[in-house]
Amino acid sequence: MEKTARVLIDCKDAKGLVYKISKVFYDRGLNIDNNREFVDKENERFFMRTVVSGAFDVKELLDALKADIPGDAHIRVIEPEDKKIILLATKESHALGDILVRHADGELDAQIQCVIANHDTLQTFVRRFDIPFFHIPAEGMSREEHEELVMRLIGEFEFDYIVLAKYMRILTPTFVKAYPEQIINIHHSFLPAFIGANPYKQAFDRGVKIIGATAHFVTDDLDEGPIIAQDVIPVNHRLTWKDMQRAGRDGEKIVLSRALTLVLDDRVFVNGNKTVIF
Amino acid sequence: MEKTARVLIDCKDAKGLVYKISKVFYDRGLNIDNNREFVDKENERFFMRTVVSGAFDVKELLDALKADIPGDAHIRVIEPEDKKIILLATKESHALGDILVRHADGELDAQIQCVIANHDTLQTFVRRFDIPFFHIPAEGMSREEHEELVMRLIGEFEFDYIVLAKYMRILTPTFVKAYPEQIINIHHSFLPAFIGANPYKQAFDRGVKIIGATAHFVTDDLDEGPIIAQDVIPVNHRLTWKDMQRAGRDGEKIVLSRALTLVLDDRVFVNGNKTVIF
Amino acid sequence: MEKTARVLIDCKDAKGLVYKISKVFYDRGLNIDNNREFVDKENERFFMRTVVSGAFDVKELLDALKADIPGDAHIRVIEPEDKKIILLATKESHALGDILVRHADGELDAQIQCVIANHDTLQTFVRRFDIPFFHIPAEGMSREEHEELVMRLIGEFEFDYIVLAKYMRILTPTFVKAYPEQIINIHHSFLPAFIGANPYKQAFDRGVKIIGATAHFVTDDLDEGPIIAQDVIPVNHRLTWKDMQRAGRDGEKIVLSRALTLVLDDRVFVNGNKTVIF
Amino acid sequence: MEKTARVLIDCKDAKGLVYKISKVFYDRGLNIDNNREFVDKENERFFMRTVVSGAFDVKELLDALKADIPGDAHIRVIEPEDKKIILLATKESHALGDILVRHADGELDAQIQCVIANHDTLQTFVRRFDIPFFHIPAEGMSREEHEELVMRLIGEFEFDYIVLAKYMRILTPTFVKAYPEQIINIHHSFLPAFIGANPYKQAFDRGVKIIGATAHFVTDDLDEGPIIAQDVIPVNHRLTWKDMQRAGRDGEKIVLSRALTLVLDDRVFVNGNKTVIF
Repeated sequence: MEKTARVLIDCKDAKGLVYKISKVFYDRGLNIDNNREFVDKENERFFMRTVVSGAFDVKELLDALKADIPGDAHIRVIEPEDKKIILLATKESHALGDILVRHADGELDAQIQCVIANHDTLQTFVRRFDIPFFHIPAEGMSREEHEELVMRLIGEFEFDYIVLAKYMRILTPTFVKAYPEQIINIHHSFLPAFIGANPYKQAFDRGVKIIGATAHFVTDDLDEGPIIAQDVIPVNHRLTWKDMQRAGRDGEKIVLSRALTLVLDDRVFVNGNKTVIF
Repeated sequence: MEKTARVLIDCKDAKGLVYKISKVFYDRGLNIDNNREFVDKENERFFMRTVVSGAFDVKELLDALKADIPGDAHIRVIEPEDKKIILLATKESHALGDILVRHADGELDAQIQCVIANHDTLQTFVRRFDIPFFHIPAEGMSREEHEELVMRLIGEFEFDYIVLAKYMRILTPTFVKAYPEQIINIHHSFLPAFIGANPYKQAFDRGVKIIGATAHFVTDDLDEGPIIAQDVIPVNHRLTWKDMQRAGRDGEKIVLSRALTLVLDDRVFVNGNKTVIF
Repeated sequence: MEKTARVLIDCKDAKGLVYKISKVFYDRGLNIDNNREFVDKENERFFMRTVVSGAFDVKELLDALKADIPGDAHIRVIEPEDKKIILLATKESHALGDILVRHADGELDAQIQCVIANHDTLQTFVRRFDIPFFHIPAEGMSREEHEELVMRLIGEFEFDYIVLAKYMRILTPTFVKAYPEQIINIHHSFLPAFIGANPYKQAFDRGVKIIGATAHFVTDDLDEGPIIAQDVIPVNHRLTWKDMQRAGRDGEKIVLSRALTLVLDDRVFVNGNKTVIF
Repeated sequence: MEKTARVLIDCKDAKGLVYKISKVFYDRGLNIDNNREFVDKENERFFMRTVVSGAFDVKELLDALKADIPGDAHIRVIEPEDKKIILLATKESHALGDILVRHADGELDAQIQCVIANHDTLQTFVRRFDIPFFHIPAEGMSREEHEELVMRLIGEFEFDYIVLAKYMRILTPTFVKAYPEQIINIHHSFLPAFIGANPYKQAFDRGVKIIGATAHFVTDDLDEGPIIAQDVIPVNHRLTWKDMQRAGRDGEKIVLSRALTLVLDDRVFVNGNKTVIF
């Protein structure tokens, strides 16, 4: 039976990798529909994303690739299907709404399991889309206590990624470590400019002529994780910081959705503190 | 009682206009919160948008301005309040959804009266937002007959603007003439490139490296009305025209919403077949 | 002896191409430093640009590749060295100057053979850079007569590409056919908008909010050849068309130089009336 | 005799300023060719740039304006003429070359007095343009000693602005204070990201998807002065930091020349640590 799979390989660079890998495909009579490679010479890492089609068994293909490629390789053979995501939000609806509308439109290859928020502001909004909404207030408890409740709820769902759609709380290392390379955040500045709180106020105070937005994987270091996508918006002296915040929202939502689409499409490899994007 | 108004003036250029107009404000003790002017030297037209605050009577202020400015002037004194809009759509939800989410978020200074569509595809989607949805199918009738039904429905609402949020039907001159400078359209190309049907297919066939979107007022000439806003998205040889269409949607929705915001803010003057935007 | 070569392959798509090609490299112990492929599914064409390094004989490598790839394939093995270019200009110095400064700076992998212009305006300017300048006035002769003189002069030089750095004359089919896929032009608009004369005046008259520049290979159809690079610049109602022209110059020179760099780097394949750019 | 002047006003905001100023113009029968205002509400500052034409005496006009506007106002009446600039450079020619080509082309309203460099690399290049070139080596002396030599040389010329066209030395407070609001620098990053040395290396290490360039007035705080212009260039994982450096050069030169043009046109007001740009 004809089918399609994405083959993702991340390993130490070596001579002959393309040959060996393409030989595995060739020997099975597979078509290469799409193929991209990258060698990080500084760190001697090889990255490859190939879309193959034909008649094959996923496990057999994976085993054959593993047999041919050095021991430390990270190899995946993925049949395209909707990934499962959990959305975290606070009060703002623009980034969340952009994802919900795309989802309703069938544009995202994802199943949204639920939205979890630390305020109930977005409850009506989310339920319009027939998505489960959970409100876990943070008042009167420690950051750790609140996160524990959130993590317990997350634990009740299957999921591939957690998307912070303007979730305005700082995460503890415990939370971050629990979901490595699985948490995607949108930061409302052109990182690494304006790390931390209220980046639009910072941008206004600095008098920049361009503001930006950055989608990145979340790691222990606040706003320092691997960057997936960035975009910018021109501004000028006439904008107050509230105006910048308003203008910046378009960038935020577009960049977050673009990053999410890339991730759902298995186009993003994490390479140390950077990304390789095919 | 302190209040705010937008004073919009569009008249033949003449010496002393800024002086005469600012004198009217000064004599009434009004503050100028914001002021922008433009002189179209080629056509000898003067445009001015001033936000004034203070204690004043709208009619008295308007009369004073009219007394001081030559006869052909188009002068408006507008107290900021939500404008009323009607949305027309077909099957796609991205541009429409962007407006609905902004509206739900309180970001648009507008009241959405209803959505009218020639297909029922978007009915559930629109009703999630508690906005009246009307389906007027076009099957089995002439363009004129269909438009008459649409116009009759429009006639039952108060409205300031009609927004074509990917309304995929060509309008007759009768329709267009009925709502001069009131219909805003989003065209899915960087006009004047790729006028007419399927611009993404045209862009793909031409092999361009950038695609775009254009929001404009609708006039008799298809895709030839005054342009309000444009934006572009880089593409490359790897994109099929379907990919371009998908990538282009982000530009379409952002540009249409940006144009709508400018119009709702009374920042757009029509100047012949162009716009002046403050 | 270790060396580097760019292997460029353009052929009918077929199963196993990547395998067969990478096997040729593998059998010779070559490193793949860089590799990019593209399959145009609509037209069933396969494109590949690989940078290999190691000890090899160019002819032997080329023959081995030819033996393995179907008959219609266009295969090149190119050792990186400066390409030879001829510049044609008229009166404006910005696009020409940008190339001359980059060349003086050692940034371009090119040897500039000469500048040919139909006016003598740029003579002093060009000679500052120690580049031969030839003035071939067009006055008092037919287009064909003038071109014959230009072609005769071109014929006295070795060259890989002819760059029209704001050469403001329309070329005859005879001229264009003499140098297929060798003539690079900069058009001062975002093609296909504003084809033909005075695109900035056209853009001004249309009231666009963005202007552009397009670098393309020249073919028989005026401004219709394969596009190599494009860029845009935001404009507004305050700009006269002369202002647009001035603002547009930055785009023109950057886009032309970017296209030239891509071509000199052997990154541009012509695919029908489009380009594939690696 | 008809002439034109730029009237630049920067003062504490107050009611009636536009009226009072336009009255001065009106009473003298002057045309307002162009007029832009901005009120910084946070700091209660009023900025205005008006181009007037007609028959007037500069001193009389200036005195009339001063009589009408509160004591702390900074008022200038400037008749357009070439400003004088001094260029400082090190070894790179792209930003310097861009200015020299524009100057040779008559595009800049400036007279270049000389180029001063701490290396002799650019000597031949600069002299091609018939611009005096001075080499002041920094070897074997302290920063202060070197700057003293540079300042002594600068002192021998009349000048309005000093342009650092990739002058790769850090300036002492003494130098900076000697030329307040007169030194324009290009920083090769999107400030405030990547302050300090080797910003492309920093950008590469951080894995950003966009790099930038920033033109700003130089103040005591390194890379912290008022920003005049910024622009960005998309990058990806395939670029080494040397590639980013190369790609970034286009942004650097365009942004510096754009900032310089704005300054020469008297369009830039310094407002604390920010700029107002008309």
